[in-house]
Amino acid sequence: MEYKILSGIKSPDDVKKLNEQQISVLCEEIRECIMLTVSKNGGHLASNLGAVELTVALHRSFSSPEDALIFDVGHQSYTHKLLTGRFDRFSQLRTENGLSGYMRPDESEHDPFITGHSSNSISAAYGIYRAKRLKGENGTAVAVIGDGAMTGGMAYEALNNAGNGKSNFIVVLNDNKMSISRNVGALARSLSRMRNKPHYHHFKYALSRFLLAIPLIGKPLNSAVYSLKESIKGLVYKNNIFTVMGFNYLGPVDGHDVKTMEQLFNIAKTYSRPSLVHVITTKGKGYAYAESSPKNYHGVSPFDIDKGASENGETTYSDIAGRTLCSIAGTDDRICAVTAAMTYGTGLTEFSQKYKNRFFDVGIAEQHAVTFAAGLASAGMNPFFAVYSSFLQRGFDQVIHDIAIGGFPVRLLIDRAGIVGEDGETHQGIFDVPFLTSVPGIKIYSPCCYKELEYCIKKAAERDEICAVRYPRGCEKECLDADFSAEYSVFGSGSKAIITYGRLFSDACEALKVCENLCVIKLNRVFPLSDSLIAGLFKYSEIHFFEEGIKNGGIGEHCAARLLEKGFQGKYVIHAIEKFVPQSAVSSGIKNCGLDSESMIKAVGGECDE
Amino acid sequence: MEYKILSGIKSPDDVKKLNEQQISVLCEEIRECIMLTVSKNGGHLASNLGAVELTVALHRSFSSPEDALIFDVGHQSYTHKLLTGRFDRFSQLRTENGLSGYMRPDESEHDPFITGHSSNSISAAYGIYRAKRLKGENGTAVAVIGDGAMTGGMAYEALNNAGNGKSNFIVVLNDNKMSISRNVGALARSLSRMRNKPHYHHFKYALSRFLLAIPLIGKPLNSAVYSLKESIKGLVYKNNIFTVMGFNYLGPVDGHDVKTMEQLFNIAKTYSRPSLVHVITTKGKGYAYAESSPKNYHGVSPFDIDKGASENGETTYSDIAGRTLCSIAGTDDRICAVTAAMTYGTGLTEFSQKYKNRFFDVGIAEQHAVTFAAGLASAGMNPFFAVYSSFLQRGFDQVIHDIAIGGFPVRLLIDRAGIVGEDGETHQGIFDVPFLTSVPGIKIYSPCCYKELEYCIKKAAERDEICAVRYPRGCEKECLDADFSAEYSVFGSGSKAIITYGRLFSDACEALKVCENLCVIKLNRVFPLSDSLIAGLFKYSEIHFFEEGIKNGGIGEHCAARLLEKGFQGKYVIHAIEKFVPQSAVSSGIKNCGLDSESMIKAVGGECDE
Repeated sequence: MEYKILSGIKSPDDVKKLNEQQISVLCEEIRECIMLTVSKNGGHLASNLGAVELTVALHRSFSSPEDALIFDVGHQSYTHKLLTGRFDRFSQLRTENGLSGYMRPDESEHDPFITGHSSNSISAAYGIYRAKRLKGENGTAVAVIGDGAMTGGMAYEALNNAGNGKSNFIVVLNDNKMSISRNVGALARSLSRMRNKPHYHHFKYALSRFLLAIPLIGKPLNSAVYSLKESIKGLVYKNNIFTVMGFNYLGPVDGHDVKTMEQLFNIAKTYSRPSLVHVITTKGKGYAYAESSPKNYHGVSPFDIDKGASENGETTYSDIAGRTLCSIAGTDDRICAVTAAMTYGTGLTEFSQKYKNRFFDVGIAEQHAVTFAAGLASAGMNPFFAVYSSFLQRGFDQVIHDIAIGGFPVRLLIDRAGIVGEDGETHQGIFDVPFLTSVPGIKIYSPCCYKELEYCIKKAAERDEICAVRYPRGCEKECLDADFSAEYSVFGSGSKAIITYGRLFSDACEALKVCENLCVIKLNRVFPLSDSLIAGLFKYSEIHFFEEGIKNGGIGEHCAARLLEKGFQGKYVIHAIEKFVPQSAVSSGIKNCGLDSESMIKAVGGECDE
Repeated sequence: MEYKILSGIKSPDDVKKLNEQQISVLCEEIRECIMLTVSKNGGHLASNLGAVELTVALHRSFSSPEDALIFDVGHQSYTHKLLTGRFDRFSQLRTENGLSGYMRPDESEHDPFITGHSSNSISAAYGIYRAKRLKGENGTAVAVIGDGAMTGGMAYEALNNAGNGKSNFIVVLNDNKMSISRNVGALARSLSRMRNKPHYHHFKYALSRFLLAIPLIGKPLNSAVYSLKESIKGLVYKNNIFTVMGFNYLGPVDGHDVKTMEQLFNIAKTYSRPSLVHVITTKGKGYAYAESSPKNYHGVSPFDIDKGASENGETTYSDIAGRTLCSIAGTDDRICAVTAAMTYGTGLTEFSQKYKNRFFDVGIAEQHAVTFAAGLASAGMNPFFAVYSSFLQRGFDQVIHDIAIGGFPVRLLIDRAGIVGEDGETHQGIFDVPFLTSVPGIKIYSPCCYKELEYCIKKAAERDEICAVRYPRGCEKECLDADFSAEYSVFGSGSKAIITYGRLFSDACEALKVCENLCVIKLNRVFPLSDSLIAGLFKYSEIHFFEEGIKNGGIGEHCAARLLEKGFQGKYVIHAIEKFVPQSAVSSGIKNCGLDSESMIKAVGGECDE
């Protein structure tokens, strides 16, 4: 593939120089490049295909980095990367040491902020905006946020703070009717009403008439712009959530029409009030498979462009979790499933269809999800909240305040626990153990295989306790069989011990094969640690605790403290994570953190077979 | 004081039996009782005085506990407590083993959920509502939420989820124009517009005309109610944030007019859509001092009713923090202060007046506050976010994702760190050390006195590092002088050591006075622990780590793990918190957790002088 125009774009300035026909070619080339790269490397496809023209229009109207452009969640930022000097490195997207799939300040001056988790863009952009004004600098800040991300409470907090000000702060709502799956909740319905009114077309028509009178970029404001602004005022909805929050509302506008968007952004810049520009895009635009089934092309593994991504991959931990929940929901009608816009990702599709009444997709709203689940539990239901580890961080206060203090037995199904791979720093599930173990009364389980995951979920449903079952992204690995009903299981009989839990047990089994004098202790209940476990450890001369999570506050430390208090005098080493973990394949991440079987074998040293 | 009516109220049913004149006397007696109790015990005054009639009306329209009533933040729940069989125990409000100042399920079947932190009521109530429907039970759920709490993103997430449903779920907005201080942001302005339209009065008039035709409580729905509903539809605002979120909007209505509210609640119950009833109250109602200066009567210490609460109490850590920030802001114009509706509580009043441009009250919005501050920092400002420890839990994900991964040097001023006393479980600042130490790259300081707090804040402003300075509620206690520039300071020369930090250093100094063979090590930089500290500990035969925070993930554990890995073989004991800490005086809480000087002396045992 030859990228005639795209390969010549070294900075956003080059985008500004293109004529209408060149822009059209550029957009085609960008789509091609994104498709080819994602089909090879995996990544976020549909959302990025939808944001091509929008991003081109933004870079023509605004001047990054003087104007700070922040793309929420970042999985609509590929075009932005391609237009800001990263075309040459784009083939390395999401690979070890390659470009991030999200915005990263250390990657480019055009990425002013980290965006990996949803709904933070308005807060960050508004902070940058206020800093610019305080420092007397030029430029504005623009948050580009999806309608899904707009359901996050954080976005609302930011709108409330930024609204009503005397600023030309700009929020662009990239409305594709989706978060990952179809967007749910009252806001989605309200946006849908705004989209569907005939209004939209009137607006477009009125705008196009006035466009003739307005100079293109860079020219001083003239009276035509003023009169356009006046006439727009008469056209747009006066009352929607954004106007209530003090924003000047512009739109909706076709998010694949570069010229119209460009003009609208230019107008937004001239207001002395914050503006929200409502842009309607098609998720997956330009790739028939993705347009017709955008949720299957949200995040994808490598696939064949001509055939489309396969819907049926290998069975994963998420699948097993969903399947198990379905099976117990069949016999216990108190079982409920709650998700924060992650039905598919957490394996709950079947549950959502089979037990509609007991299934709750609450939007990208982890805070609410935790407390809503606690409300269900307080009234006698048996709720499971399935959530990615790194997103549960958003519900930490609610876990303490609404689940644990109240003592309401919510079951947390923590998916993507441990290293997640290509999504990198922002998505690693390495904090849940430290933060959950600090909360009095929570029990933690971390299965090593599908069979144990199934066992844990079934037991969780039976027990009247607050608990977390945490399991990794992807598929199970081979390991020895254990008696999951015990608090811990011991394998081998050496004087050196490896203690571990979850996925790493498989690596420990590998180590056990090749090391003599080694004993592997698998924690079935990861936390709290039982007295008998601690007492039993005194017979080992050397203990290595391997943990796929943060060291500070991890189980290895809790175990160390218990041992030291009891007077353990052997050698004790914690092998865990001490820094943010960059993107790479999962196996590579585990290896780089020194947690794979080879590292284990090396750690227990001279006593090995080979 | 004789409580003729109130003393006869044993349950909400008794409230329903009263006539109009008795209701009026009841409200007077409730106010008297709240004033007397709070003036003796301290507590939340103004918000509770404002909610008297509202709560009486709720208990006349709804049937608790069949209908679940949830009062957000709980500091508007005193009347609810008085009407639900807790009048006899009310004099014990906020005392050790006495009634909680918030809702507590273990206190009464009329308290369905914990509410100590703001903005969780809609989520909890909606969970309970859905559970009731799933179980085929009667009754609805009602969330009573202030306009301040409505700025929290969690409330919005819940509205988005609950809106549009086919339910008679009810949210009551108790709008007193305040959170703690005057409410800020776009929502506040929008509510103010709704309040101020002539509309309000029309609505009241129309309602009163129809009321004549409607039977009181308990009677079956009749055509008069239907026609009233129809005519209300024509009167209320069709477009506000609540209607956008799919709620049926009713109001605004005078929140001190029991009869009108009661009728409105009865109407809300008949809808098959979720309703929001907008109630306007006067914070501090009935107590002249509190009405004229509600923010000074939000949370109060014991005071003289006739003279009013004193504005000038003793200087606190919060005052020193605010004063220090002011002083450095004078010479460094990059210094900004951010607060989440806690200007007064965090000592920022002076800063807010003196440096208006660099002061940001973002509403009850900790998630946004953290990321907004990170945005300021990313663009070169030097922001301090002053926040209570237990409320920072709401911003945990943002600390990881937006501050730490991005490496943007935000300074966290963590007020109310440690045991906070009468507010109890929900407000204890005991989790910040575990959760912050799990985040790579954060430095933590925990001053023992005002002088050190000042030092820490000044240093924080100079250093280009992400840091937290945490300090307790209240006033400093006497302690030895230390060289704060060192990572740690050693006092005494015994073979037993007490390691501690923050406020407990004062207790350790007491222990040092009476114990021989004792050495006290004060951590100046609490985290990370330096290698030289760890190496230096090997000379002690016995180490006691005292920590006013959760043990799991605390510094005592981090220190234990480091020591064990290095081969320390002495005695090591962690004295820290392992359970939620109930309400009591601060000193009593510290003692009950075994962290006071006496406990220290006892711990180091036989080696003491006396």
